[in-house]
Amino acid sequence: MGKRKLRVALLGQGFMGRAHSNAFCQVKHFFDVPFDLELRVLCGRDRERLEQMAATWGWAETATDWREVVTRPDVDVVDIALPNALHAEAAIAAARAGKIVLCEKPLALNATQSAEMVEAARNVPTMVWFNYRRVPAVAFARRLIEEGRLGEIYHYRAVYLQEWARRPNLPDTWKLKRAEAGSGVVADLASHLIDLALWLNGPIREVTAMTRTFAPGRDLEDAGLFLARFENGSVGSFEATRFATGYRNRNAFEIHGSRGMLAFNLEDMNRLRFMDASEPDSLQGPRDLLVTGPGHPYSENFWKPGHIVGYEHTFIAALGDFLQALARGERFRPDFEDGHRVQLVLDAVERSAASGVWVSVPPR
Amino acid sequence: MGKRKLRVALLGQGFMGRAHSNAFCQVKHFFDVPFDLELRVLCGRDRERLEQMAATWGWAETATDWREVVTRPDVDVVDIALPNALHAEAAIAAARAGKIVLCEKPLALNATQSAEMVEAARNVPTMVWFNYRRVPAVAFARRLIEEGRLGEIYHYRAVYLQEWARRPNLPDTWKLKRAEAGSGVVADLASHLIDLALWLNGPIREVTAMTRTFAPGRDLEDAGLFLARFENGSVGSFEATRFATGYRNRNAFEIHGSRGMLAFNLEDMNRLRFMDASEPDSLQGPRDLLVTGPGHPYSENFWKPGHIVGYEHTFIAALGDFLQALARGERFRPDFEDGHRVQLVLDAVERSAASGVWVSVPPR
Amino acid sequence: MGKRKLRVALLGQGFMGRAHSNAFCQVKHFFDVPFDLELRVLCGRDRERLEQMAATWGWAETATDWREVVTRPDVDVVDIALPNALHAEAAIAAARAGKIVLCEKPLALNATQSAEMVEAARNVPTMVWFNYRRVPAVAFARRLIEEGRLGEIYHYRAVYLQEWARRPNLPDTWKLKRAEAGSGVVADLASHLIDLALWLNGPIREVTAMTRTFAPGRDLEDAGLFLARFENGSVGSFEATRFATGYRNRNAFEIHGSRGMLAFNLEDMNRLRFMDASEPDSLQGPRDLLVTGPGHPYSENFWKPGHIVGYEHTFIAALGDFLQALARGERFRPDFEDGHRVQLVLDAVERSAASGVWVSVPPR
Amino acid sequence: MGKRKLRVALLGQGFMGRAHSNAFCQVKHFFDVPFDLELRVLCGRDRERLEQMAATWGWAETATDWREVVTRPDVDVVDIALPNALHAEAAIAAARAGKIVLCEKPLALNATQSAEMVEAARNVPTMVWFNYRRVPAVAFARRLIEEGRLGEIYHYRAVYLQEWARRPNLPDTWKLKRAEAGSGVVADLASHLIDLALWLNGPIREVTAMTRTFAPGRDLEDAGLFLARFENGSVGSFEATRFATGYRNRNAFEIHGSRGMLAFNLEDMNRLRFMDASEPDSLQGPRDLLVTGPGHPYSENFWKPGHIVGYEHTFIAALGDFLQALARGERFRPDFEDGHRVQLVLDAVERSAASGVWVSVPPR
Repeated sequence: MGKRKLRVALLGQGFMGRAHSNAFCQVKHFFDVPFDLELRVLCGRDRERLEQMAATWGWAETATDWREVVTRPDVDVVDIALPNALHAEAAIAAARAGKIVLCEKPLALNATQSAEMVEAARNVPTMVWFNYRRVPAVAFARRLIEEGRLGEIYHYRAVYLQEWARRPNLPDTWKLKRAEAGSGVVADLASHLIDLALWLNGPIREVTAMTRTFAPGRDLEDAGLFLARFENGSVGSFEATRFATGYRNRNAFEIHGSRGMLAFNLEDMNRLRFMDASEPDSLQGPRDLLVTGPGHPYSENFWKPGHIVGYEHTFIAALGDFLQALARGERFRPDFEDGHRVQLVLDAVERSAASGVWVSVPPR
Repeated sequence: MGKRKLRVALLGQGFMGRAHSNAFCQVKHFFDVPFDLELRVLCGRDRERLEQMAATWGWAETATDWREVVTRPDVDVVDIALPNALHAEAAIAAARAGKIVLCEKPLALNATQSAEMVEAARNVPTMVWFNYRRVPAVAFARRLIEEGRLGEIYHYRAVYLQEWARRPNLPDTWKLKRAEAGSGVVADLASHLIDLALWLNGPIREVTAMTRTFAPGRDLEDAGLFLARFENGSVGSFEATRFATGYRNRNAFEIHGSRGMLAFNLEDMNRLRFMDASEPDSLQGPRDLLVTGPGHPYSENFWKPGHIVGYEHTFIAALGDFLQALARGERFRPDFEDGHRVQLVLDAVERSAASGVWVSVPPR
Repeated sequence: MGKRKLRVALLGQGFMGRAHSNAFCQVKHFFDVPFDLELRVLCGRDRERLEQMAATWGWAETATDWREVVTRPDVDVVDIALPNALHAEAAIAAARAGKIVLCEKPLALNATQSAEMVEAARNVPTMVWFNYRRVPAVAFARRLIEEGRLGEIYHYRAVYLQEWARRPNLPDTWKLKRAEAGSGVVADLASHLIDLALWLNGPIREVTAMTRTFAPGRDLEDAGLFLARFENGSVGSFEATRFATGYRNRNAFEIHGSRGMLAFNLEDMNRLRFMDASEPDSLQGPRDLLVTGPGHPYSENFWKPGHIVGYEHTFIAALGDFLQALARGERFRPDFEDGHRVQLVLDAVERSAASGVWVSVPPR
Repeated sequence: MGKRKLRVALLGQGFMGRAHSNAFCQVKHFFDVPFDLELRVLCGRDRERLEQMAATWGWAETATDWREVVTRPDVDVVDIALPNALHAEAAIAAARAGKIVLCEKPLALNATQSAEMVEAARNVPTMVWFNYRRVPAVAFARRLIEEGRLGEIYHYRAVYLQEWARRPNLPDTWKLKRAEAGSGVVADLASHLIDLALWLNGPIREVTAMTRTFAPGRDLEDAGLFLARFENGSVGSFEATRFATGYRNRNAFEIHGSRGMLAFNLEDMNRLRFMDASEPDSLQGPRDLLVTGPGHPYSENFWKPGHIVGYEHTFIAALGDFLQALARGERFRPDFEDGHRVQLVLDAVERSAASGVWVSVPPR
């Protein structure tokens, strides 16, 4: 086709590796992709599963040492879906090798690391897989806020409620080990909440936080809660937990402003609840928007109005937007800089949970 | 106060007798009642329970023979909450004695009876307790329709779903006996659906119907369904059943028009769902109106916005409106004429269920 | 009837005065009341409206000086629905005069006052109108928790979201004046949240809090948020606000435990959402219980299953339970002691909001 | 891999062509596919769009004459996504050429055609794209019914509510032309309702129906409603319309039985609402099952519990099941025989709508 070729190396063969593989396969079906993507190499440690996964998703090769992969000359894009503790090292190595770098969230274990990553990647395009910005309903929320439809913001309220870690006989996962994950729900779930909050409601100035481990013997937190003051004068409430019996994957926010309100819940991710306070009193009430078009973000990419999309489409849309920005030479958001800003808030949350006092979030 | 006294006789000591008693006690607390209501006499057959009920609700006297009561000179208002089979006889006697007559729904066993009742009551004020017209959310639905907010109507869909009659060991109730009830869900539940439909969407021209008895040995129908053509060109779907496992009291309708839609469900009776099709496409979605003010029907009568009302308030509001209309000398709706129009549709439903063909509803 | 007479004085003619008047009128219709209630005197300052209100609700007399009323020999029960700043003085005077004392929430302006009230009322029956304990669904939640159906509790999450105070042209209400209300949403809304939390989930050990005033020139807070640690090891999140555009009266809680979860929202107050984690995985999901019987709290008192109750029934049920406990010589809950415990938490919330650190709640 | 190659020809380049293309691309990513699928040829009439579509989805060739394609020796599977009026001719030609035949719904214009198709395809594997059987929540509903969890069925209620055809300036689509579509919502939407009903609740014995065209000048129906009697004794209510303002794609059913109820809505397709009537009364209420695992149909194929799937996954799952059945030499359902049975009901609906009387559905 004459399109520029982009040869991709994917580091990681877990659940995220699968979600990314799907995005690489599907993006051209739904987006006008200005590149010829080549699934060059899939890298992981479990060789048997690796071969099978490569065959399933069409990766040309497999490898087991990511350190070699990130500098390979036949690779243009390094996509990192490793345990959190490896993000910084892998991303910095890839960036220094001049690769385009995509990285799973959270960007790093802490803001010191993420600052180094930003620095190392100053001259390469980057992306952090905060995929929930690309839920069509969330993207539409952002548009409504930008249009001023909420007015001055008073409240931002967000929860990420899962329940799996309360169960007995859990699989052996790095997500439950401090050495690999860095922290528990703060890194895993609160990072998503914070990225969306910063994107939708602007910078957070300070936080007061608490964490809690329910499972005996676990060395990282099962729950983390914090209150926040935003720069725009609004107040925030955040809660992330893996012990919310009854909720499988409730990533939800509510925003109240002088002109309206918005509510979203990932378990019902094709809907956005919107209340327009400029209506007459008797007609004011939250309405359910089925954000599948017409006129909604990504509705031209996927199916027809009323035909819903699922979890995987957030990855496809993120990749589609990234590739289009890349072709235009524009900055993609969220990039490493955005991932670093999330990290600054996560650090403040952890310091406040340890100290019991309010902690300021540095501006950068 | 110098208000005109209205002395009330209530015929019936069942569940409806209790709901009416409550309305007579409460109406002055929420409505500006231009009469001095006196709870003169409560009439029923179970003398022991009757005394207790009279004491609880403040009825001055009790009686056991309704035929004597309806002509008593010290009674101005006769309120009939007897089994359906007695409505016509009691109402005609009361009307002929010049009483104001209130009657539970359905007005009669059939349209022949109801026509006689209308004739007999030509010169007295009447009311049929189709109380659901006075759910604030339903009254608001009517207002929105009158304002043209739905435009041309395409669809009217209504269900009344209960489940009690599927249970074993049912109490001995006249509602399950054809001799006293006339019919099953058609008389009991479909009558409510039809009254609301006629009020909200205008006359029904013809119907095709089916009924079904699930319980062995029962001599009346447990379920009744029919399709309808309305005079305004819209089509209707109706279903009434006492075998809808999972629903306690779901009296619900949905209306679709060229400019919007409305949905209501009695189990969530303080809410009305409204979609305004004149909004931009991307902002079109059903909104949940909490019909408790400001600006909603009856919101000045009851509590503050956000403080919901219950089942009993529909009776209080019906009585409040009736008494105010009475004081102004105006016709109250629904009156016996309206009850008769419901009966004409019920008759058509029963004839169609028996014959298997479409049956026209006479205009009057 | 030979029942003991209880002569009631009601102090207050506002919205709460109306809700209490209704309860005094209605309680005998739904509860087996072992007393003969006499609505002796209604006390307020706006004489014109006072007469009208007394006439509407059947108060025998009116008065304008509550200090005289609370010691009147012809009064047995003093019911206080005055602005918060007057609760302590009125309640102490009434208690010292040997009256039964009912008091609106919050019990006092602070825990010093409430401790004095508890002391003064040591020998008289008392009640605090934390009416939401008597929402049938909330009472049922308590029963499920007592039965162990939630197991060990992990999370307690509560919000009280209103929006009225964001509007322009507000009525002149003592609720927006620090001198009369003591505080804003903390006293008014968080007090409800805390009473329910203590009742459903036990004592709170410590809190970290923040408050926020959005309206220019207002001398009390429009929003208050706090995190909490409970004695049972669970963590809590609380938010009260009058600036939650889109919610009229959302008093909601969610509780997650090792064996299940519960969720409630006052705007939909006849429902309780319950998830039973002892079900097989594939059948686990929150279920909507329509708490109107059979087998639910108060379902024998009010209407039939599926026929919902409203805001006012919480007052009727509280009064019914109080009178029955009084007749049996038992302690009623919540009494002044319970009101004081709420006050201890409110004080901790206010101190934490001022200091920015965690504040312990004294055990008593 | 040594897998048998299956070379596919897709007839049709519209919305369904796109959904099928996606399924052919994605099936191997989520299912263990025992064949090597080759996207051999895409056939359509709009050559320019055809080339683009082929490039996007990876079809090796394009063609414009389906008559040639269906007999090509290098094609093993013919997948028909043409306008309804062409289904029979194309399917019969393909079957006679010995191809595996997949066909969009409805199978044919009428039961005469579909009977011929069944006959012609007697010796080849077939499939009809009634994709909604493979919504995980619908497949789970079927499993619950098979396990007896609903007991004896009383009611089956289904609606398919869309709104697009009420809009002005509609695109030029064969779906609105009788010559190509055969009928309007009956063929397009009621066919889905009937397939699910037959699968979930067994054969329909007879129907009474009505249709309505709202748009001036349109030569096929915008709405179709019918009542039904099922062989198992239950009664059914069906409604399909493209004039249901407010609903984009509400394909919903409710089933009530002696032991429970089920409710589903395609706009919220990852959820199934289930009520278990064997619970104690006070705990009976419809529960929301998020049918994404663990233990749910297809939850091992797609993502993790709580991570929802979308519209397209129904096609992927249908194709996955078909290919696995094909490899095992088993009959796949729904096949042409099932499609024919739907056609028999559709014919009865149309005859009843024309005649106004109940019409029996022939057993085969």
